[in-house]
Amino acid sequence: MSPPLRLGIAGLGTVGAGVIRILQQDATLLTARTGRAIEIVAVSARNRDKDRGVDLSAYAWEDDPVALAGRDDIDLFIELMGGSDGPAKAATEAALAHGKDVVTANKAMLAIHGQALALQAEDAGCALRFEAAVAGGIPVVKCLTEGLAGNRMSRIMGVMNGTCNYILTRMETAGLPYDTVFQEARDLGYLEADPTLDVGGIDAGHKLALLASIAFGTQVDFGNVTLEGIERITIEDIHRAKDMGFRVKLLGVAQMTGRGLEQRMTPCMVPLNSPLGRLENAMNMVVLEGSACGQIVLRGAGAGEGPTASAVLSDVIDIARGLRLPTFGQPAASLTIATPAVAPTPARYYLRLHLHDKPGALARIATILGNQGISIDRMRQYGHEEQSVPVLIVTHKTNREALNIAIDEFAGTGVLSDNPVAIRIENV
Amino acid sequence: MSPPLRLGIAGLGTVGAGVIRILQQDATLLTARTGRAIEIVAVSARNRDKDRGVDLSAYAWEDDPVALAGRDDIDLFIELMGGSDGPAKAATEAALAHGKDVVTANKAMLAIHGQALALQAEDAGCALRFEAAVAGGIPVVKCLTEGLAGNRMSRIMGVMNGTCNYILTRMETAGLPYDTVFQEARDLGYLEADPTLDVGGIDAGHKLALLASIAFGTQVDFGNVTLEGIERITIEDIHRAKDMGFRVKLLGVAQMTGRGLEQRMTPCMVPLNSPLGRLENAMNMVVLEGSACGQIVLRGAGAGEGPTASAVLSDVIDIARGLRLPTFGQPAASLTIATPAVAPTPARYYLRLHLHDKPGALARIATILGNQGISIDRMRQYGHEEQSVPVLIVTHKTNREALNIAIDEFAGTGVLSDNPVAIRIENV
Repeated sequence: MSPPLRLGIAGLGTVGAGVIRILQQDATLLTARTGRAIEIVAVSARNRDKDRGVDLSAYAWEDDPVALAGRDDIDLFIELMGGSDGPAKAATEAALAHGKDVVTANKAMLAIHGQALALQAEDAGCALRFEAAVAGGIPVVKCLTEGLAGNRMSRIMGVMNGTCNYILTRMETAGLPYDTVFQEARDLGYLEADPTLDVGGIDAGHKLALLASIAFGTQVDFGNVTLEGIERITIEDIHRAKDMGFRVKLLGVAQMTGRGLEQRMTPCMVPLNSPLGRLENAMNMVVLEGSACGQIVLRGAGAGEGPTASAVLSDVIDIARGLRLPTFGQPAASLTIATPAVAPTPARYYLRLHLHDKPGALARIATILGNQGISIDRMRQYGHEEQSVPVLIVTHKTNREALNIAIDEFAGTGVLSDNPVAIRIENV
Repeated sequence: MSPPLRLGIAGLGTVGAGVIRILQQDATLLTARTGRAIEIVAVSARNRDKDRGVDLSAYAWEDDPVALAGRDDIDLFIELMGGSDGPAKAATEAALAHGKDVVTANKAMLAIHGQALALQAEDAGCALRFEAAVAGGIPVVKCLTEGLAGNRMSRIMGVMNGTCNYILTRMETAGLPYDTVFQEARDLGYLEADPTLDVGGIDAGHKLALLASIAFGTQVDFGNVTLEGIERITIEDIHRAKDMGFRVKLLGVAQMTGRGLEQRMTPCMVPLNSPLGRLENAMNMVVLEGSACGQIVLRGAGAGEGPTASAVLSDVIDIARGLRLPTFGQPAASLTIATPAVAPTPARYYLRLHLHDKPGALARIATILGNQGISIDRMRQYGHEEQSVPVLIVTHKTNREALNIAIDEFAGTGVLSDNPVAIRIENV
């Protein structure tokens, strides 16, 4: 039997408590699987006195996570504090400086400092692993880094923020506007303290950038993820999209194109009857497309105590078993710097207009689209609503630039009663 | 840079050719990911002269796979011949006896000899890995063994034979009877030489037994998998099930119950709108349920050159990277022998009857069910069809034993014009 793996855990929120609970309850099972004991030696959090529903009395307490990270009696530092900088980063760096392996659930820290931290880890001969940072309980980092390592990956897609998916699902099923559902989600505790991280697509964008690095062998480049949140999605568009056979998702897409690496986390339309289109409530889904495997779809809970703890433990167990890999699958120094794609690949678009009810209004719109080389796949005009006529257009594949020019030109016609909405239709 | 990993490949069918093609085309990428070259040294197959679409001229040829397995100049033996015994088993044993790691896609061999081979591999300090044996391109073995290793698994479910799922989908969508679609599938080359392996559920049962071993820490026990094929599924039942909100799938279920390990590969009804119910054509899906992760769903192509080669390469790359695990996740000697469950857990059942159009016929049926303690959730009687009246019953949860008794008693009433059909409704 190998010597025990000794853990220090910093951050005792829901996930930290979940990890401790499993280590306490299932010690025998985990030892059978790893061939060694996994022991918690010390913990750290902001508030020592809070009741977390787990017994911490057997563990040393450190007020300072940096001090915890440097303790001689731990082998592995588990960082569950969150935040891209501050104590999480300081403690992670300290752990690596002391030759400790690190497991983290911190997508923000890795999306911004992942390359530097991975280099530091590899120089120190340490593991730095982050399964729990992406899509909660779905073992997507492992699937991509190891399970699909024989593939040239062509595209990664994902619904990776359960809160946004919950909001969009709830808007559709309850017929409630964004603001109301947003408030519901806040009341239910589904939103981060800064809700922009969720609804602005930032949190999901961090996750996408991490997966893109593994998939394409490139340095994490969160700064070049095109971000657009769900704040402007209306219930009208959700319902009209459904009429046309689509559902709106906050969808991450990363693909390597001839013009560079494209990374987007934006609202997209996907077919109602696709796995992504059918994904409801707070579930996450990641779609991995590779040269040999074809399309692999992974679905599961993207957050919560159990799922995230499951992912943290996956990394801990790998380390206990001696399964060691570079952070992003290949040595950090070998990751290339991707040229960001200047524009998204052409796609079909959903276009929703409100026109004044005047003769020739639709003709003006159609003419402008035609002049920009944008052809119309399907068009539907609805009956008058108050002062305007809703018109839906599904275009054939077009460049976003051409569409933007057309939309600018619409404004000059005087036929619009409202700002048009254009949403990309992702070919899933 | 580590020394190259030297491969011997036995079996040059679709999958073998696919593995070679990827190793030739993507050598640079694979070396970037593993830190070493992966080189094919020698190959073996029954027919040396067949054109496989890949250039084999740089590799040594062995007519005898056992000789290939023992060559001094290979580190890893890849077994892609198939068959539970014969050359595949002899060559695998020879490779292990010579201290070679082994990667195989052979579900039949492992379902029957997995425990003995895993013990041999571990005694020899060798890896014996089988990602490609289960669900093709879906990295389910890795997900379960590593990604979800922090969980007590409660249930594993899966549609793991694409041919059966194709047949059932095609029967439904084209309205064709089983025999016609079976012949189509045969003409398309979808069926094994012995089609019972597919449509009898044997192939999928092998896969289920392998996953159950990992999930529950038990020795593979294919002999106790309850097997029932799709041969008796009629288009009538497919359509009537749909009326009631269900779809028929050849579904594998493994769960550890208070009464022992339950393993079944049988036709089941699943809700139309569940991920399993929506799975169409030749796709595979595996559902993994654990104590912390909740429900994880994996979907992808279960067969074919690319997907299976992707899985083979996943194992090869693990070995190239030095990621080594026992065959079933924990040492083979530590796997327990599970007590097989004597009867399946209670479930709801779909019951389809054809009754003679006589007064009181339905009452007789209902009385018998009631006497067996089986209560009816929903019942639907259809109009006369020829000489009989179709009746559908969805029961509440019941024991299969009680249902079997009731069905036996139906026969004595003289009201049946046909044998009844009972299909378990799996709660997914």
